[in-house]
Amino acid sequence: MINWNNLDTLASYKELSEVKPVNLVEVMSGENGAERVKKYSVPMAEGLTYNFGAKSVDDDILAVLAKLAEEAQLVEKFEALYNGAVINTGENRLVLHHLTRGQLGEAVVAEGVDKREFYVAQQQKAADFANKVHAGEIVNEAGEKFTTVVQVGIGGSDLGPRAIYLALENWAKVNDTLKMKAEFISNVDPDDAAAVLNNVDLAHALFIVVSKSGTTLETLTNESFVRDALTKAGLDASKHMLAVTSETSPLAKSTDYLAAFFMDDFIGGRYSSCSAVGGAILSLAFGPEVFARILNGAGAQDELAKNKDIMQNPSMLDALIGVYERNVLGYPETAVLPYSQALSRFPAHLQQLDMESNGKSVNRYGEPVNYVTGPIIFGEPGTNGQHSFYQLLHQGTDIVPLQFVGYKNSQMATDVVIQGSTSQQKLCANVAAQIVAFACGKADDNRNKNFEGGRPSSIIIGEQVNPESLGALLAHFENKVMFQGFVWNLNSFDQEGVQLGKVLAKRVLAHETDGALKVYSDLLNI
Amino acid sequence: MINWNNLDTLASYKELSEVKPVNLVEVMSGENGAERVKKYSVPMAEGLTYNFGAKSVDDDILAVLAKLAEEAQLVEKFEALYNGAVINTGENRLVLHHLTRGQLGEAVVAEGVDKREFYVAQQQKAADFANKVHAGEIVNEAGEKFTTVVQVGIGGSDLGPRAIYLALENWAKVNDTLKMKAEFISNVDPDDAAAVLNNVDLAHALFIVVSKSGTTLETLTNESFVRDALTKAGLDASKHMLAVTSETSPLAKSTDYLAAFFMDDFIGGRYSSCSAVGGAILSLAFGPEVFARILNGAGAQDELAKNKDIMQNPSMLDALIGVYERNVLGYPETAVLPYSQALSRFPAHLQQLDMESNGKSVNRYGEPVNYVTGPIIFGEPGTNGQHSFYQLLHQGTDIVPLQFVGYKNSQMATDVVIQGSTSQQKLCANVAAQIVAFACGKADDNRNKNFEGGRPSSIIIGEQVNPESLGALLAHFENKVMFQGFVWNLNSFDQEGVQLGKVLAKRVLAHETDGALKVYSDLLNI
Repeated sequence: MINWNNLDTLASYKELSEVKPVNLVEVMSGENGAERVKKYSVPMAEGLTYNFGAKSVDDDILAVLAKLAEEAQLVEKFEALYNGAVINTGENRLVLHHLTRGQLGEAVVAEGVDKREFYVAQQQKAADFANKVHAGEIVNEAGEKFTTVVQVGIGGSDLGPRAIYLALENWAKVNDTLKMKAEFISNVDPDDAAAVLNNVDLAHALFIVVSKSGTTLETLTNESFVRDALTKAGLDASKHMLAVTSETSPLAKSTDYLAAFFMDDFIGGRYSSCSAVGGAILSLAFGPEVFARILNGAGAQDELAKNKDIMQNPSMLDALIGVYERNVLGYPETAVLPYSQALSRFPAHLQQLDMESNGKSVNRYGEPVNYVTGPIIFGEPGTNGQHSFYQLLHQGTDIVPLQFVGYKNSQMATDVVIQGSTSQQKLCANVAAQIVAFACGKADDNRNKNFEGGRPSSIIIGEQVNPESLGALLAHFENKVMFQGFVWNLNSFDQEGVQLGKVLAKRVLAHETDGALKVYSDLLNI
Repeated sequence: MINWNNLDTLASYKELSEVKPVNLVEVMSGENGAERVKKYSVPMAEGLTYNFGAKSVDDDILAVLAKLAEEAQLVEKFEALYNGAVINTGENRLVLHHLTRGQLGEAVVAEGVDKREFYVAQQQKAADFANKVHAGEIVNEAGEKFTTVVQVGIGGSDLGPRAIYLALENWAKVNDTLKMKAEFISNVDPDDAAAVLNNVDLAHALFIVVSKSGTTLETLTNESFVRDALTKAGLDASKHMLAVTSETSPLAKSTDYLAAFFMDDFIGGRYSSCSAVGGAILSLAFGPEVFARILNGAGAQDELAKNKDIMQNPSMLDALIGVYERNVLGYPETAVLPYSQALSRFPAHLQQLDMESNGKSVNRYGEPVNYVTGPIIFGEPGTNGQHSFYQLLHQGTDIVPLQFVGYKNSQMATDVVIQGSTSQQKLCANVAAQIVAFACGKADDNRNKNFEGGRPSSIIIGEQVNPESLGALLAHFENKVMFQGFVWNLNSFDQEGVQLGKVLAKRVLAHETDGALKVYSDLLNI
């Protein structure tokens, strides 16, 4: 029996707010600090490690977090989710993105279809299609091979697949598995589509239109933009376009597309990277084998999320520490700081994943909650950020919890030794240094050079950004956000907050405005 | 006589916290809302307008903000700054970036040099060099024209110039003034340099090494990376490399460079886009005339910052409203949301500009302050953000003040009409709709579909992203941040918070670590 209760009704939450907080400067100093960092380390899938030595927790706090996990039935709720319960209550939907990478529990049959089989079939269809394109069996009107694939989508149809593509583009080059270059069109700003199309060899390009409903304004507009450009170039648009959509959407049955790959209502946009939304473009860009390796990494990480022991379930542990920082310590933001240029757009993906899932003020029954929920997520790769916003993180008046990510090896293995170390060593030295600088600080009589410390962080450490480890990283954060939604008793799988703007924008375009909206419309010459 | 006092010692600040706050939903509704939006509008330079109709202020609050501006002597402090006072007290330096685009007050002579003349001479030197490159008078070893320019720099040597290049790249293409393609290498991650170098035709590339001190670890490392690549390609590195540095730096007199352009200690990295740091690459990429137009736009906006009347000084007004939101209303973040794909990296530049300048806990005398200072800055272009983190902005438990930017016209003028409107109209309709949705909200009995409203925003509206309007936008935010620093009594022009990490990283690389730092170093295989 699962109970969906607000966080502030739980005994363990009350207890959590009464435990003595940690003095991070103290516990991270000297040999005790060393022991702590060794001890507070949990293995993730695919060789990743979640190390929380520099988080503001200790054994006492962890013990209460374990109670909270139990009282809030986090693992039971995850089990209900992957076994097909209606977790997305607002929209009366199942939540099945985990099935794209493995069968975690029972078969889930909906509308007479085994959903795991359905998702796998779509992945296979995309794989077969990609293989034929790579083999020159599916070609353009002139019988020539396609060389570029362009994703036309926005939000979840853009951020995740784009972050993954950028993360693996250079890895694929050095591993000789970059089959096609990928580009992305997302914004309704006409300059976005125009700029991408200017840079693409249209005659050898495939365009994937990605919209679950088939009604997303930006995506349909950009689809027309692309069709216009293809037609003006004397090409047959239907020979260059694919669709990723739901089976019931207007796009699904159209002869305007060379092929269509299907998703369904049980996978939210921001959780769709492992469905056909990511599968079509990533299989075309890198080959289906690489996409399968991403799925394997994600699936392995999902398996860990079934563990009831918080020390064997890094995503749940990360989620619980985040709740402690947000609700007890009162920190409103989290910065995501990957020390890898390949992960340059991963923070933007996590920003959507987290803020769209848990940026809510009502619980899953639509009742207002009396506590803060999802934090602001932002971030840039290190070491770049060190020369930018880290000043505030070190010496500003607010404390921002930090999520570092670092890898022992680069992707391209091209490196130089300067002053006795490689660039990769310098990169790693910097992230190690930052963790300790943030946690321990450094006293200085010149207050301008004084560092208070006490800034908590965790780090995920891996061998290299590759398909498996990237899949595991993706799934870790998806599951972290899911567990936090369970703790806060939210529905993390709808997004009603995006609706009002859409309605008002339509009104502006129909010139059906008054009051302030009319004045803004006039100022913007609409 | 200028008095440098903490914010909480000012009578007007006490008064500010006692004025009745605005009910944004109420004041933005109906015809009163329309009147308000019309009235709360201040012209900026180059056809831009700062509209703050949807901010949580009214005439009463504005009256106290005007008092605060006067009591804190904001314009007098700006005057002292551009006339050459030692405003950067921590480092005992003048603050002279405004002189790169105009002489706002008296001649500033330091170390026997008229600084305006010095900066202009460096811009002219870069312009002459660029003209010769474009004319084929300066060529590679084979006598061929250079086609690409690569900036090697980090932080302020990267973010501002990169944001400006991306903002004008497509504008330059359609206006036939894209002279050379620009690329950027910043991160010490070896994959950053390796990936850029893989994509660059080395034989026809110029590399600009940008480091004021000539000692920035990342930049020197990447310089060696580039030299290695050039040498391996059989090229003479000294014929492909330029330096932007201070006259006293190790880079300045080296024969390793084809040319060197100078900056000095009186221009901080994050304020250096209009110095040779931006001037060299932007003159090479777009031609010196385009760079001059950026300077003109910035200079025109600087002139407005001299006005004592807050209603004629949009940067000061913006700064004051921000202080009200931060210190009285208690909002810890600001989101920057440009409705222009061209401005995709402008939020990252503002993030550095703001957070590195005002992320401080001590005043200009090194004494701790008892109030919060610089906010967290983050943002992505609209409409993309609408399909990502806007969910939290609309319905999350925290309120985030918003800074929209919108333009009436696109840059490339390639557009399509779908459902009766162009993409540009859709883009503008969306930003208008969002402002009103955030401010007014919409009541719904289904609490999940309920929008509280009361989320304040302002919008800067322009005709188009072009060199002049971009220069004005850049200067607006520089001056806003400066005025906020004055209000908070901070030194906005140093960055001591970046030092500790550097020191510890060096220790890691020298294997001189113990405690937690040693464990992290081991975990990362350093």
